[in-house]
Amino acid sequence: HKEILKLNEDPRVHGVCLHLPPASLTSRVLNTIKPEKDVDGISDLNMGRLVRGDMSKGFVPPTASAVMELLERHEPPLTGKTVLLVGGEGPLGVALQCLIERSGMVALKSHGSSEVLQRQVMQADAVVLLQTGHMNLPPTWIKPGAAVISFEPSLMTGMLNVVRSSSHWLHEQQYKAWRLRSLKLQPLTPVPSDIEISRAQTPKPVDQLAEEIGLLPEELEAYGRTKAKVRLSMLDRLHAQPDGKYVLVAGITPTPLGEGKSTVTIGLVQALSAHLKLNSFACLRQPSQGPTFGVKGGAAGGGYAQVIPMEEFNLHLTGDIHAITAANNLVAAAIDARMLHEATQSDKALYNRLVPSVNGVRRFSPIQIARLRRLGIDKTDPGSLMPEEVSAFVRLDLDPSKVTWQRVVDTNDRFLRKITVGQASTEKGQMRETGFDIAVASEIMAILALADSLSDMKNRLARMVVGTSRSGQPVTAEDLGVSGALAVLMKDAIKPTLMQTLEGTPVFVHAGPFANIAHGNSSVLADKLALKLVGRNGFVVTEAGFGADIGMEKFFNIKCRASGLRPNVVVLVATVRALKMHGGGPNVSAGAPLPREYIDENLDLVAGGCRSNLRKQIQIAHLFGVPVVVALNVFKTDTQAEIDLVCQIAKECGASDAVPCHHWAQGGRGSLELAQAVNEATSRPNNFQFLYNLEIPIVEKIRTIAQKVYGADDIELSPEAKAKIDYYNQQGFGTLPICMAKTHLSLSHMPEKKGAPTGFILPIRDVRASIGAGFIYPLVGTMSTMPGLPTRPCFYDIDLDPVTEEITGLF
Amino acid sequence: HKEILKLNEDPRVHGVCLHLPPASLTSRVLNTIKPEKDVDGISDLNMGRLVRGDMSKGFVPPTASAVMELLERHEPPLTGKTVLLVGGEGPLGVALQCLIERSGMVALKSHGSSEVLQRQVMQADAVVLLQTGHMNLPPTWIKPGAAVISFEPSLMTGMLNVVRSSSHWLHEQQYKAWRLRSLKLQPLTPVPSDIEISRAQTPKPVDQLAEEIGLLPEELEAYGRTKAKVRLSMLDRLHAQPDGKYVLVAGITPTPLGEGKSTVTIGLVQALSAHLKLNSFACLRQPSQGPTFGVKGGAAGGGYAQVIPMEEFNLHLTGDIHAITAANNLVAAAIDARMLHEATQSDKALYNRLVPSVNGVRRFSPIQIARLRRLGIDKTDPGSLMPEEVSAFVRLDLDPSKVTWQRVVDTNDRFLRKITVGQASTEKGQMRETGFDIAVASEIMAILALADSLSDMKNRLARMVVGTSRSGQPVTAEDLGVSGALAVLMKDAIKPTLMQTLEGTPVFVHAGPFANIAHGNSSVLADKLALKLVGRNGFVVTEAGFGADIGMEKFFNIKCRASGLRPNVVVLVATVRALKMHGGGPNVSAGAPLPREYIDENLDLVAGGCRSNLRKQIQIAHLFGVPVVVALNVFKTDTQAEIDLVCQIAKECGASDAVPCHHWAQGGRGSLELAQAVNEATSRPNNFQFLYNLEIPIVEKIRTIAQKVYGADDIELSPEAKAKIDYYNQQGFGTLPICMAKTHLSLSHMPEKKGAPTGFILPIRDVRASIGAGFIYPLVGTMSTMPGLPTRPCFYDIDLDPVTEEITGLF
Repeated sequence: HKEILKLNEDPRVHGVCLHLPPASLTSRVLNTIKPEKDVDGISDLNMGRLVRGDMSKGFVPPTASAVMELLERHEPPLTGKTVLLVGGEGPLGVALQCLIERSGMVALKSHGSSEVLQRQVMQADAVVLLQTGHMNLPPTWIKPGAAVISFEPSLMTGMLNVVRSSSHWLHEQQYKAWRLRSLKLQPLTPVPSDIEISRAQTPKPVDQLAEEIGLLPEELEAYGRTKAKVRLSMLDRLHAQPDGKYVLVAGITPTPLGEGKSTVTIGLVQALSAHLKLNSFACLRQPSQGPTFGVKGGAAGGGYAQVIPMEEFNLHLTGDIHAITAANNLVAAAIDARMLHEATQSDKALYNRLVPSVNGVRRFSPIQIARLRRLGIDKTDPGSLMPEEVSAFVRLDLDPSKVTWQRVVDTNDRFLRKITVGQASTEKGQMRETGFDIAVASEIMAILALADSLSDMKNRLARMVVGTSRSGQPVTAEDLGVSGALAVLMKDAIKPTLMQTLEGTPVFVHAGPFANIAHGNSSVLADKLALKLVGRNGFVVTEAGFGADIGMEKFFNIKCRASGLRPNVVVLVATVRALKMHGGGPNVSAGAPLPREYIDENLDLVAGGCRSNLRKQIQIAHLFGVPVVVALNVFKTDTQAEIDLVCQIAKECGASDAVPCHHWAQGGRGSLELAQAVNEATSRPNNFQFLYNLEIPIVEKIRTIAQKVYGADDIELSPEAKAKIDYYNQQGFGTLPICMAKTHLSLSHMPEKKGAPTGFILPIRDVRASIGAGFIYPLVGTMSTMPGLPTRPCFYDIDLDPVTEEITGLF
Repeated sequence: HKEILKLNEDPRVHGVCLHLPPASLTSRVLNTIKPEKDVDGISDLNMGRLVRGDMSKGFVPPTASAVMELLERHEPPLTGKTVLLVGGEGPLGVALQCLIERSGMVALKSHGSSEVLQRQVMQADAVVLLQTGHMNLPPTWIKPGAAVISFEPSLMTGMLNVVRSSSHWLHEQQYKAWRLRSLKLQPLTPVPSDIEISRAQTPKPVDQLAEEIGLLPEELEAYGRTKAKVRLSMLDRLHAQPDGKYVLVAGITPTPLGEGKSTVTIGLVQALSAHLKLNSFACLRQPSQGPTFGVKGGAAGGGYAQVIPMEEFNLHLTGDIHAITAANNLVAAAIDARMLHEATQSDKALYNRLVPSVNGVRRFSPIQIARLRRLGIDKTDPGSLMPEEVSAFVRLDLDPSKVTWQRVVDTNDRFLRKITVGQASTEKGQMRETGFDIAVASEIMAILALADSLSDMKNRLARMVVGTSRSGQPVTAEDLGVSGALAVLMKDAIKPTLMQTLEGTPVFVHAGPFANIAHGNSSVLADKLALKLVGRNGFVVTEAGFGADIGMEKFFNIKCRASGLRPNVVVLVATVRALKMHGGGPNVSAGAPLPREYIDENLDLVAGGCRSNLRKQIQIAHLFGVPVVVALNVFKTDTQAEIDLVCQIAKECGASDAVPCHHWAQGGRGSLELAQAVNEATSRPNNFQFLYNLEIPIVEKIRTIAQKVYGADDIELSPEAKAKIDYYNQQGFGTLPICMAKTHLSLSHMPEKKGAPTGFILPIRDVRASIGAGFIYPLVGTMSTMPGLPTRPCFYDIDLDPVTEEITGLF
């Protein structure tokens, strides 16, 4: 206050810029400022800078030059940005529009209806209020960082209004414990089926959940009552908010039955949010419909640790996988059609069709100009191309035997693994062998998981390499002219889907790439949004696919590199069943009854598993400098002695803590111990580091993973793998990270080798690349990218009651 | 009032049942009733019967036997129905639960939370209020026809509350003009691109639109802000509401460029709703993504007659086509996997896998019991089947050369027209030739369009024939065990999607089957829902695919048979361009510039087209006894003389009226004349009749269509077609309606024959059947079920601005 009084008297001071906490911006302080001084802004309000005209001339109506002066000296400069003129219908508005456009900004006049106005204000980089009555623009409409310029006579009052509501709004931005209404659980014994448990709980309306966790209504796009997509604009709004704590759930090498990473993840957030009252979010992958109707069943967790409604989670969700399928298959159709058209048309015919004359004018589209640039042709007039330039432009000249792009379907359809297409007479003999992968194995899914904005996703989609030309050049989606359409198809899929656990705590479901040939992690964007929403003291628990040697290694080396995020703790999920297997127990296989060793107490087998696989997986996490909490997912056949033994040895092996979890039978209450251990571990020292530097040669990166993570003595490259590595190096892809395609059933490449195998050489059969996703993937053995249906698939038991609309048989 | 007083004194009268209009149920009337008399119900309130206990004993707390007496004498009986006990936690509740269950009803106790309570009340057939404080249950919660029983001491007041709010609610059920806030249009000249027009208009929030047209919030499932699915429960709520008027939009035989049926449909409802203030709904088909990214572009109308936002309409919408794709391809995967498993396993191995022992018990699933029934095996114990019964049960024995089920994809992927699958070594040499159709050609799409409830859809899905066994028996989706899963995949797709036109009037988008091999009409359910929502004096305008000879004929003979609905008027869309073509003008083809004849005035060509094709198409509509209004979709090159000539000849040919429409350039205002003509025509006599009786032989049905609709002299069946017809007759499919698969570019089977060809024999190459959809489809010539991509597909121009999220290049 006194400071301001002093400034008022200082002749050198022409303006006052207030940097004060909102609470102290009382009318007393504001009134202190002499009208002679410019009030040049109340910045740091997050909601944007509030700028005022030159008051030294008194309260005159604004002039075009006064507005221009303010706009032009704004920092950062507004060149190329959008300036919205609110209430400028008169001559001043017209004059300003001309001046603004001339100075390189984009002028926009406000529209009458309040909906349109809101949209315009939200998108504008600067808002000029030319009439009275507009100071009541809700501050939430204003884009963070946008300038607001007002000449209104009642400015002081108006400003105070804005300050008051923005201080309220700022308060809303701050971290605080959610007022989350958790849903009560009354677990039954024996535990009913997953679908029965899910159906017995009524989820909160998703808009209520969204409000509880601090989302604004305009950031939500509901899909029915229990699912909603969350807009990425939230990231801008909360960019100044500190991130919460980041917890990765990984597992030891699993049996073919799976060890419950998803249920541990869900149980943990139920415990953190609903019981310890700590903001926390689970980030999960969207399941494929293939396994849901095939062998494995759904993936919404299980027992009393589930995402609800589980049928919504397991079916179409909000259509992301369908969008990926549509985008992937549009690329495939474009490839084959293009090869046919190139094979059957002259350069001239192709050129005339690709660059047609529309109303007498021929013009390259932006996507075509991008291709010309890549070809080194710096022309924009279609008439000026030399014949050889036309030929280079129109012919992608894809080598049919080197098309790497496959079609996809989200169904376990084994007969599509290898097919011949183009056998109809209309395709003029252009047959070729190709195949379908399951949709989640699409590179577009990997991109969805790694993209950190819409433009990043669009760029990655354009970069995807679909094959090689006869002259050995990579051909991209952009070369096919399809990358804009792909971005359009994926524009909603990029928004994570909000759902809830059985106890009413929030969950993001987003992306779901395969963890064997792709990186197998949920999306960077879901994690980022969740980290902002939970705030400084909150927790985001995200899950990596398969064993820690695969999912966690890729999480660190690929996903964390893409996101820039650093995890605080790794939760390593183990089961007595899997530990016994690693300790030397007999084979475990889906469909067959479990051998007695897995039902009766057997401390020797347990100890063997702990001292081999569990120890090794803990060490792998420590390679990255992150503390580990072991979560023992307790089954009803586990004895207390077995449980105690696992926890004891895990701690001996370096785990920060090791605790049993009973979430399946008890929900969050059963995971309280784990929640406390995780909370505790976040205060441990954390020296995160990547395993390898991107600059080292591809072969060295592969060797590092094989030796340090898998425990191999060395790697052995097939001639094919060597040739591919040379090719990728030559194409400039040598600095991409590595995404190993290896069995998840062993630390080695041999599924039957349990425990922690040593003394083996890892054979690299082939090396491929997902340039859009941004990784090189060496193939260790044969990886199936299309599961099959068994004799009696899950769908036999799935049914719908047409009267109650209840689903049965999903699990 | 006096009547009641008399009754009060009559000792024979123990109860009073009030049958009065809600308005007269004043407290004076109600207070007149002596408390000694039973007030046994205020029925006819639609909202349910309000029943009261025996008052002759005074206001005592209810007894279990009093409640039971009321429940047991309720008409209709409540046996098997659900009785909800609200507030019955005490011993009375427990006793009642036992008694209710013993008497064959289902007792349910209320749950504390108001959301659950609401859901429970909504589903209950009777609600018993056992405590005070529950009379405020909103009447809208109560299922129509449900009984409400209360013993509350404050009954009189409570009852009045209910009566008052239910009278309000009843009023809401009545037909009334919508309070629709229409969106203002300010059409620009020249007309901007479709996406620019769409983007310039801000749609109303879909929940606001829903409220304006009388939907209840609980009947809506929003998908984002501008689309929502509408629950079928609305049909129950409004079952007593009279239907609106039903208008079919069909067209003359089109040029390959299309003549604007969709824009006419949208322009007409814009005129009816936004200008004439008559409730009206457009029912449109969902477009396939194939054409959107291929040649044709989107299908949301065009110019100032569009559905907005057009990009939402043209992209994933609410995922229905994706759900169809998933369901269709699950069937395909099940077929091939089953053939593989049967080829590689013994009867015993198949049986052990199909009917596995779970915890020591073997049990048939319901879907398997259904198959046993079809095989004539009346057993339920898996252990009791004879070996030959086991063999019949486990072996569908599909003949690989007679599998008719194709896979689908919603992409123009010509290379999938004919493919060989099963070439991977894992498929053990079980290769076969098959193909993909575009997703909208799937039988499941045809079913979605014809089903009139969830259970009807489920039954149709189960009945779908996928191929023939080696012994000649049809094999169904139910035989594959997949029909329950299909219903689950389709459970949301069955709900129509609500959107809006550029002028803010409501549109249902639902289903979109091909009009050549399928019936090509939007869904029965969307039409039915819309007819209830518009009410007695409202209009539902629905569109049939392609020319009237195809789309309209199938609309009448297939869709109207399935729905039981009868149209009031046919709007027949014509353009000067198409009429000139039929009058002898040169060839019109996509991509090539229009010949001069189509740009300059040419009255001879116009007259020729009117007296041939237009006349014939009017006659076809008259075959069904429905009045016709011709809508001339005016292009800017049409001259006034041409326009006048068309209208004059159309009326000479029997049209009730014929008017020019300018919706493309002007929106609803440009279709006012059409709207008035349609309104007028609904008062014309309408003697609807089907073209053929279902009981006549298949051949006769085909001949009737060929002669009466197409103008053929006769039909000629190939030996293959004859054999198929015999087979279908033998299988009991002879009474299905006929869905002709014929070119839409001519009334005949020869696309080059324009006008109204005569003197030809219609060749029937083959005959197929969609048993689930419920029709036989003869193939007249070759119909492509998978479009291709041209050299420069639409996707070249489609792009997304990653900052503004605006889409360009969609049209």
